Amino acid sequence: MAVYTEVSDEELEAFVAGYDIGEVLSFKGIAEGVENSNYLLQTDRGNFILTLYEKRTKPADLPFFLGLMEHLAARGLACPTPLHGRDGRSLRELCGRPAAVVSFLTGVSVRRLTLEHCASLGGAMAEMHLKGADFPQSRPNDLSVAGWRPLFEAEKDRADEVKPGLAVFIEAELAALERAWPRELPTGLVHADLFPDNVFFHGDKVTGIIDFYFACTDALAYDIAICLNAWCFEPDGSFNATKARLMLNSYRKVRPLSAEELNALPLLARGAAMRFLLTRLYDWLNTPAGALVKRKDPLEYYRKLRFHQGITGPGGYGIE
Amino acid sequence: MAVYTEVSDEELEAFVAGYDIGEVLSFKGIAEGVENSNYLLQTDRGNFILTLYEKRTKPADLPFFLGLMEHLAARGLACPTPLHGRDGRSLRELCGRPAAVVSFLTGVSVRRLTLEHCASLGGAMAEMHLKGADFPQSRPNDLSVAGWRPLFEAEKDRADEVKPGLAVFIEAELAALERAWPRELPTGLVHADLFPDNVFFHGDKVTGIIDFYFACTDALAYDIAICLNAWCFEPDGSFNATKARLMLNSYRKVRPLSAEELNALPLLARGAAMRFLLTRLYDWLNTPAGALVKRKDPLEYYRKLRFHQGITGPGGYGIE
Repeated sequence: MAVYTEVSDEELEAFVAGYDIGEVLSFKGIAEGVENSNYLLQTDRGNFILTLYEKRTKPADLPFFLGLMEHLAARGLACPTPLHGRDGRSLRELCGRPAAVVSFLTGVSVRRLTLEHCASLGGAMAEMHLKGADFPQSRPNDLSVAGWRPLFEAEKDRADEVKPGLAVFIEAELAALERAWPRELPTGLVHADLFPDNVFFHGDKVTGIIDFYFACTDALAYDIAICLNAWCFEPDGSFNATKARLMLNSYRKVRPLSAEELNALPLLARGAAMRFLLTRLYDWLNTPAGALVKRKDPLEYYRKLRFHQGITGPGGYGIE
Repeated sequence: MAVYTEVSDEELEAFVAGYDIGEVLSFKGIAEGVENSNYLLQTDRGNFILTLYEKRTKPADLPFFLGLMEHLAARGLACPTPLHGRDGRSLRELCGRPAAVVSFLTGVSVRRLTLEHCASLGGAMAEMHLKGADFPQSRPNDLSVAGWRPLFEAEKDRADEVKPGLAVFIEAELAALERAWPRELPTGLVHADLFPDNVFFHGDKVTGIIDFYFACTDALAYDIAICLNAWCFEPDGSFNATKARLMLNSYRKVRPLSAEELNALPLLARGAAMRFLLTRLYDWLNTPAGALVKRKDPLEYYRKLRFHQGITGPGGYGIE
C-alpha cells in the first residue's frame, strides 16, 4: 500500500479537464498496488482509478501495459480499461509522472482462499490467455530464467544471512533450471503476477483482474505455475492438491493443456518459485527493517521451491 | 495517510452483516485521517466510510464523537452520519478495535486556498457552532491552556534542538497565555482541528466537514482562531488579511460575534498557535526521521505565534 505522489486539487482539475469524464465529486488516495500511486476518482459519470507511475515502472513499457488492458477489456475480460483523453491518448502526465485513468472494477480481493475461488481463478486465467492471443505487441519476461542469475549475483554474498546454505542451494537449483528450462511450450500473453491481491471476487466469482504491470510474453503455463504457488499453498506451508486440481481443471475446460505443458508444470513451478524467492530476497537484503514497505518473507518461496523439487509429474498437482 | 489495520474479506463480511446496508461491492483502504484506519466501503446501497479507531483515539471518547456527528447531521450539517447496526449500536468492534460506519461525503479537500474558500469556510463553521449548541454531551479540551504546560515539560530540555532559544520563548509565552487567557467567552461545541484537510469543497462551496476526533467543549471563538492560523497564512508565511476578513465576515453573518470575542481573537490565535507548536514539537522530537508518518514543521506555528504577538485588536485581522 502506498501513495507516493500527492496530487493537489488544482493539478487534478486541470488533468481531469483533459478527459470527457464529467466533474470531480471525490478523490481519495487508495492503498492498492505496491509500485505506483493510486487514487479512486469519482465524477458525476462514475468511478475511475487514476494511477501515477512511480520509478519502478519503466515508462517505455507503459504503452504495452495500457494497450494490453485495452485489448483484453475490448474482448470482454473484466480488467481495467484505460480511458482516452480528449487528445486521443491514454498515457498522459500528472505531477511530472506518467499517468493514466482506468475504469473501476467492483469486487474484493480475498485472503482466505476457498476451493471455489481457486476453481474460478483457473477459468478466468484461461480466458485471459485466450483473449490475449491476438494482442499484437510483445514484451520479453525480464524476470524469467535468463534474468535470475544476474539477480542472484547481486545477492549471493549475503543470501546466507537469511538462511545458512541458501546461496549454495540457489546456485545448484539455478544451474538445474537453466539446463532443463522448457523452450517449446505455447507462448502468449501472461500476467506474471496473478496473486490473490490482484484478483477481485464477488462471492466465488472472479469480477476483475488488475495490475498488469508485470505482463509479458512467455509460456502460458508459466502463469499457471505462478498461481500454483500463490493460490494452492495453505498458510501453514502445506500444499492443497485439491485446490490445484480444481484450478487446473477449470483452466483446461476453457483452454486445453497439452501433454508437454502438463509435464513441464513441476519445473515451471520451481522456476516461478525461484523468481519470487530471488526478488523477495533482493528486497529483504536491500530494504531497511523499519521502512514504509512491508518486506515479504523470501523463505516462503524457498519452501515452495523445495516442495516442487519433490514432484515428478502433473499427478503431484492432483491431475493426470 | 495510513491504514494501520488490515481487514480481511471474511472479517468484513461478518461485520457488514451487522448492518442493513446491502452487499459489499468494493472495499479499499484510503489515505485519509492520520490517527485511524479508514476504508471506503461500497455496497449495492451506496458508499460508506468504515473507520477502525487506533490507539491514539480514546475509546471512552468515541460515544461523544459519534453522538456529535449524528447530532450535527440530523440538523442538516454536511458531516459524516454514523450508521446504526441491526442491534441499534453505532459503535461496534472489528479486528479487536472499536469501529464505526459513517455516511460518505463527496467533495475534495483543497490545497491552494482561495478567498472564496475562506469565505465559504467561515459560514460553514458558524453553522456548525449553531447546530452544535444543543448537543447535550460535553468533553473538556485536553489541548487547551491547562494542557500546554505539561506537554511543554516533556519537551523543554530538547526544544532548542529545533531552534536555539525556543524553550525560553515558549516558557515566556505560556506564562503570558496562562495569565491572560479569556474565560468568559461563549462556549459550545468546537471542532478544534478544522484544517483544510478536514473540509471538502465542490468548487467554492463547502460540501462536508470531517474528522471530529478532537471535537470538544470550548470557547467558540477558539475554533475561529485555529482557522485564522490554518487558512489565512500563505505558503511563504505571510498573513492574508483579506482571507481573514472574508472568513470572519461570513462567520458573523450566520453567528454574530460579540465585542469580547472579537477583542479576544489575537490572544486566542496565539493560544491556538501554541497548541499546534507544542504538539508538532512533541511529534518532531519523538518521531524518527524515517518513520511512516510525515513530521510537520513545528516552526511554522512558532512563526504564526510571533505574528499574532504583534496584533493588538481585530483590526489586525481586517475587521472592526
